[in-house]
Amino acid sequence: MDIFYSPEHRAHRGEFEFFRGELVPCFEKPERADYIHAALVRQELGNIVAPGSFPLDAIERVHAPRYLRFLEGAWDEWAALGNTRDAIPAVWPIRGFRHDVEPDSFIARLGMYSFDSGTPFTAGSWQAAKLGADIALSAQRRIAGGARAAFALSRPPGHHAGADFLGGYCFINNAAVAAQAFIDGGAHRVAILDVDYHHGNGTQSIFYGRPDVLFQSIHGDPKTEYPFFLGHADETGEGAGAGFNQNYPLPAGSGNDAWFAAFDLAASRIRAHAPDALVVSLGVDTYVGDPISKFRLDAPEYLRMGDAIAALGLPTLFIMEGGYAVKEIGDNVASVLRGFRDRAG
Amino acid sequence: MDIFYSPEHRAHRGEFEFFRGELVPCFEKPERADYIHAALVRQELGNIVAPGSFPLDAIERVHAPRYLRFLEGAWDEWAALGNTRDAIPAVWPIRGFRHDVEPDSFIARLGMYSFDSGTPFTAGSWQAAKLGADIALSAQRRIAGGARAAFALSRPPGHHAGADFLGGYCFINNAAVAAQAFIDGGAHRVAILDVDYHHGNGTQSIFYGRPDVLFQSIHGDPKTEYPFFLGHADETGEGAGAGFNQNYPLPAGSGNDAWFAAFDLAASRIRAHAPDALVVSLGVDTYVGDPISKFRLDAPEYLRMGDAIAALGLPTLFIMEGGYAVKEIGDNVASVLRGFRDRAG
Ligand SMILES: [Zn+2]
Ligand SMILES: [Zn+2]
Repeated sequence: MDIFYSPEHRAHRGEFEFFRGELVPCFEKPERADYIHAALVRQELGNIVAPGSFPLDAIERVHAPRYLRFLEGAWDEWAALGNTRDAIPAVWPIRGFRHDVEPDSFIARLGMYSFDSGTPFTAGSWQAAKLGADIALSAQRRIAGGARAAFALSRPPGHHAGADFLGGYCFINNAAVAAQAFIDGGAHRVAILDVDYHHGNGTQSIFYGRPDVLFQSIHGDPKTEYPFFLGHADETGEGAGAGFNQNYPLPAGSGNDAWFAAFDLAASRIRAHAPDALVVSLGVDTYVGDPISKFRLDAPEYLRMGDAIAALGLPTLFIMEGGYAVKEIGDNVASVLRGFRDRAG
Repeated sequence: MDIFYSPEHRAHRGEFEFFRGELVPCFEKPERADYIHAALVRQELGNIVAPGSFPLDAIERVHAPRYLRFLEGAWDEWAALGNTRDAIPAVWPIRGFRHDVEPDSFIARLGMYSFDSGTPFTAGSWQAAKLGADIALSAQRRIAGGARAAFALSRPPGHHAGADFLGGYCFINNAAVAAQAFIDGGAHRVAILDVDYHHGNGTQSIFYGRPDVLFQSIHGDPKTEYPFFLGHADETGEGAGAGFNQNYPLPAGSGNDAWFAAFDLAASRIRAHAPDALVVSLGVDTYVGDPISKFRLDAPEYLRMGDAIAALGLPTLFIMEGGYAVKEIGDNVASVLRGFRDRAG
C-alpha cells in the first residue's frame, strides 16, 4: 500500500511538556515518525509518497474556523509578545465559564482552545499539523480513487483534537478530517476504529451527534488513564448519533486476550454499520514496552491486529496516532501493515 | 474594628506557579498577609483577634462536598504518589467533557477541580484555606452580633474559587461562605462588593441564580485581563437571580475617576437592594504600583474608597483578596479601613 509521508513533520519539535508539577522533555518526538518511516522502508511495505497540499476547507469541515485561525497565527502572536519558549496554556474555562466570547489575550485564547498543558505549541506546530492533515487527505484520496488501503504517516497525531480544542499532542484531528472527506466524496457511511491506548476523545466529540460516522475505541479506562474525562462505556452517542459511538475501556494491565475480545465487539459493530470505508486511528502505545501506557500487547499481536482489520474486508485508511517506545514503534506499525497485506493481498 | 487574623496562614506557601510557558516564583506569598497585619497594628486600626474553628458545614453551604473532600485529602494523596513538589494541574475537562464521573487518577481530579495552573497545591494549602474561611466566619459572627464592621485577614484569598473549582490563588471562597452565613443567620438580603482588580468569577458563579445575594464587581476587562472567561457587563444573573449580578469591567490603565464612576453605579445598586449586610471582597491590586495588575489607583484613593463604602451605612465585613505590591499593600489596606472608620465612627 502507499505510505504518505513528509520529513517536514520535524517542524513540530516540542521541548518540554508540563507533567506532574514540572516541565519534562516531550514524549512526542520527531524521531517517532522517523523510526516508523525507516521500518516501513526496510520491510518494503509500500511506496513512500509525498502528500499534496489541500485548502483549509476540508479541515474546516470538522474544525471551527476561529480555532484554525488561532492555530495559524498562534506562534507569530506568541513570539510578538517577546516569547521564545514553546507556548503552553495556564488558564482555561471550566464549568460555567464563557466560551462564546473570544478573549483578546493570547494566553487566554490558548487556554480556551486547550485541554492540557502537555501539548507545547512551537514555531513549527501549525505547519506540521497542517501537513499531517494533508497527509491524511492525500491517503484518503488514494482510497477514494480505488485503492484497498493506504497509510498516512501523520505527525503530530490527531485523535485527541476536537472541533475547537487541542491537547494530547494533537492539533488537527487527521482521522476526523479524512472520515469527513469520505462523506463529502459521496460515502454514505464511514467507520473509525481507534486502537490507540488512549481514548480518541476528540474524534468522539466531533461525531457524537452523527449517525453517518461510527466511532469505535478500545483504550485504557479513563477512570485512571488519560484523557480521563471521556471514554466511558456509557457514551454511546446523542441525538441522531445515538447508538453510533461505542467505547471499550479496559483496565490498565490488560493483555492480548482482553484486547482482542474488545476488538471482536468493535468489529461486529463495524460490520453492522456496513461502511463504505474504514479509518483506523493507529496508535501502537498498546505495546507492552510503551513508556507512558499500560496495556501489555506483545509484538506479534500487531501482525494479528493487521490481519483482523483486513478481515473486515473494507477500504482501509490507516492514520498514525500514538506510540512512544521509540525503538519498537516502527516494527509494530510495520507488523500491522504486514498483517493487513498478507490477508488483503 | 476587630481584625481577625492568624499567623498560621503561612502554612500555604507555594513555590512556583506556571506562567507563560515556564515555572516562576509565586506572586501570592505569605509576606502579603504579614505586611497587612503589620500596617494595621502600626496604625492602631483595631484589635487583632484569633479566629474560632467552625465545622465544615458552613463551607459546604457554598462548596460541593466532593470538592472539599478532594481538597482535604489532596496533599496526602499527592505525597503518597511519591511527589514532593507542589501539585499543579496539567489536564482538565473542556467543552463536552464529562464532569459527572470523578476519575480515580489524582492528577485528573486536580484538573477537574481547577481552572488554572497558577495555584499550586502545597502541603499546608488545605489547613490555610480552611483557616481563611474560619477567619471570614469569625468576622461574620462579630457583625451578626451587632458590630458595624470587621476585617477578615484571610489568606489565601477566595473570590476566584467556585462551588467546585480552585484557581487564581483561591481554594475556598471566603466571601461567599460569609455571605451565606449571613443568610443562614436570618439575613434576607446580602450584597457582595468586589473591588479586587480581577473579576470575582468564583463568587459570581456561586450566586448567579440567586436573588438574595447581590454581586457587584469592578475589575479589569476580561477580554484582556485574568480570569478572562467571566466578568463581562452582559452577565447579569440567571433564573431567579436575573438582575442580581452586575459587572463593571474597565480597560487596563483605568485610573481614579473611571474607578469611582463605576463604584457609584455599584453603590446605587447596593442601596436599591437594601441588604442586611455588605461583604467587601477587598483586593488592593488596583494600586498603580501593583506588579501584576493594570489599574492606576493612587494611594490616597484607598482612604476615599473606605469612606465611600462607609457612606453606604451598612454592617460591613471586609475580606482580604488580592494585592501584590508587597511593600505598599499594608498601607493601602490600612487606608481603606481608616477611611471607613473616619466616616462610620
Ligand atoms: Zn495514545
Ligand atoms: Zn486580584
